[in-house]
Amino acid sequence: MKTYEEYLRRVEGALIPSLEGLGAIPGRLREAMAYSLEAGGKRLRPVLLLAACDLMGGSEDEALPFACALEMIHTYSLIHDDLPAMDNDDLRRGRPSNHKAFGEDVAILAGDGLLSAAMELMLRTACRMDSLRGAKAAEAIARRAGVTGMVAGQTVDVTEEGTAPTEEKVRYIHTHKTADLLTAPMEAGFLLACARPAEIEAAVRYGQNLGLAFQMVDDLLDVEGTEADLGKRTGMDAAQGKLTWVALRGTDGARADAAEAVDAAVRAIETLDRDTSFFAALARELTGRTR
Amino acid sequence: MKTYEEYLRRVEGALIPSLEGLGAIPGRLREAMAYSLEAGGKRLRPVLLLAACDLMGGSEDEALPFACALEMIHTYSLIHDDLPAMDNDDLRRGRPSNHKAFGEDVAILAGDGLLSAAMELMLRTACRMDSLRGAKAAEAIARRAGVTGMVAGQTVDVTEEGTAPTEEKVRYIHTHKTADLLTAPMEAGFLLACARPAEIEAAVRYGQNLGLAFQMVDDLLDVEGTEADLGKRTGMDAAQGKLTWVALRGTDGARADAAEAVDAAVRAIETLDRDTSFFAALARELTGRTR
Repeated sequence: MKTYEEYLRRVEGALIPSLEGLGAIPGRLREAMAYSLEAGGKRLRPVLLLAACDLMGGSEDEALPFACALEMIHTYSLIHDDLPAMDNDDLRRGRPSNHKAFGEDVAILAGDGLLSAAMELMLRTACRMDSLRGAKAAEAIARRAGVTGMVAGQTVDVTEEGTAPTEEKVRYIHTHKTADLLTAPMEAGFLLACARPAEIEAAVRYGQNLGLAFQMVDDLLDVEGTEADLGKRTGMDAAQGKLTWVALRGTDGARADAAEAVDAAVRAIETLDRDTSFFAALARELTGRTR
Repeated sequence: MKTYEEYLRRVEGALIPSLEGLGAIPGRLREAMAYSLEAGGKRLRPVLLLAACDLMGGSEDEALPFACALEMIHTYSLIHDDLPAMDNDDLRRGRPSNHKAFGEDVAILAGDGLLSAAMELMLRTACRMDSLRGAKAAEAIARRAGVTGMVAGQTVDVTEEGTAPTEEKVRYIHTHKTADLLTAPMEAGFLLACARPAEIEAAVRYGQNLGLAFQMVDDLLDVEGTEADLGKRTGMDAAQGKLTWVALRGTDGARADAAEAVDAAVRAIETLDRDTSFFAALARELTGRTR
């Protein structure tokens, strides 16, 4: 196992080349896709995928295109989420959002392009393998990003906005909008390493709980943002009918639930007969963000 | 080989079940995706895929999910194309376009959902096969629908609108925006049937030329629409700086070029040592549309 920073460097070095490796992309499209892909962030999903594959003895080189594809999917979802018809965000990570920089039409196509590129990259890689493990990893990612996964969560988030938060509703949104895309790298990484079904199950439990904790902490940070800085847009969400864990449980309840989800994630990954300290530390660091 | 109507019936019968087979999709998302998927049309792309696989001795049952996936991809592209920021079309096939019926936010997600569902469906099918042929077929479809294929063509169409038509530009748009998604079913159908590289090459040449002819005829019908019915929106495109084959060559030139492309398509498919009359007749019927 390597450090987070070591996996991160591999991802950062491969993102744009993996896009360009697909062939001659029209200039404006390539620019718009690269603009959002290069905008940074923690790269949590691709790092998790490399680490998950590594943990189970798989090949990091083989996992790298899947890691890049997952980050492309995450990035497409942010571009489409920011559109005027969706969250209408002018800024993303301190820079103009994609549609502010390139226009709405190109932003829609850049999102479509990143999702398409992700699938093409995974399939191209899968076709070069000597077994179906690449196709299985791609299937897990497509499923968790798709109409019973991330897109499902986003749709319910959009269509139920302004309704009363119920645990069922908020849990559904968090599970699919957020946790599924953190479970995908665990499942895909384990599938690439040809892990056994029981091991994959543990990895999925880790990912789901990590994802729930991650979103609860995000909801908490939004509220704390509100208190510290009343003008901050994200901070206002909780007060404006968004279906958040804080709206459901209050800050103390959300903090306790996040800690519990982290514990569940750690317990799940520790059932594996491996050195899982990387994953336990990552989950624990998450709750640290709220202190 | 069967008739067009027989293939069509198989596709029509499988489209919605193949979507629902993916699992529990949230009601509003399922509704919006099904609304556009059920809107009909010729189903040219999925029929071509079944026929192509059949021609080369492949299994129609095995090809059916790929045919449905291709129609989902075609449908997603129409939903996103109709959005206010793109072509801003209120109507599609005589009914309110997806965003008019479901709102822009759900329409964006329905498009994302259909593309995701297409990939998931193909990958799920590919993972059940005893070889990589399913992954190879999915790769061909993803590539031709992606950032060097359909999305590339759409981006250049959008970003170059209003500029002077050059042959290079219009050919690029038609090849990628239209012909790539008619080439995909030929390539994927042949890959599923484990055809040889030279055979696949002939199928690709057929698809590319069929696609170019198809778009040229569409451009001609738009202009003839203008003459017959000045208020018809699509008919106005040619006069409003759209990069069409008619804008480049005039109606007579476009008609001659379309006929030549059809001939090239027929010649390509007839290099195969099979009864290719289905494909020749289909291509010839296309030019009939302009008479």
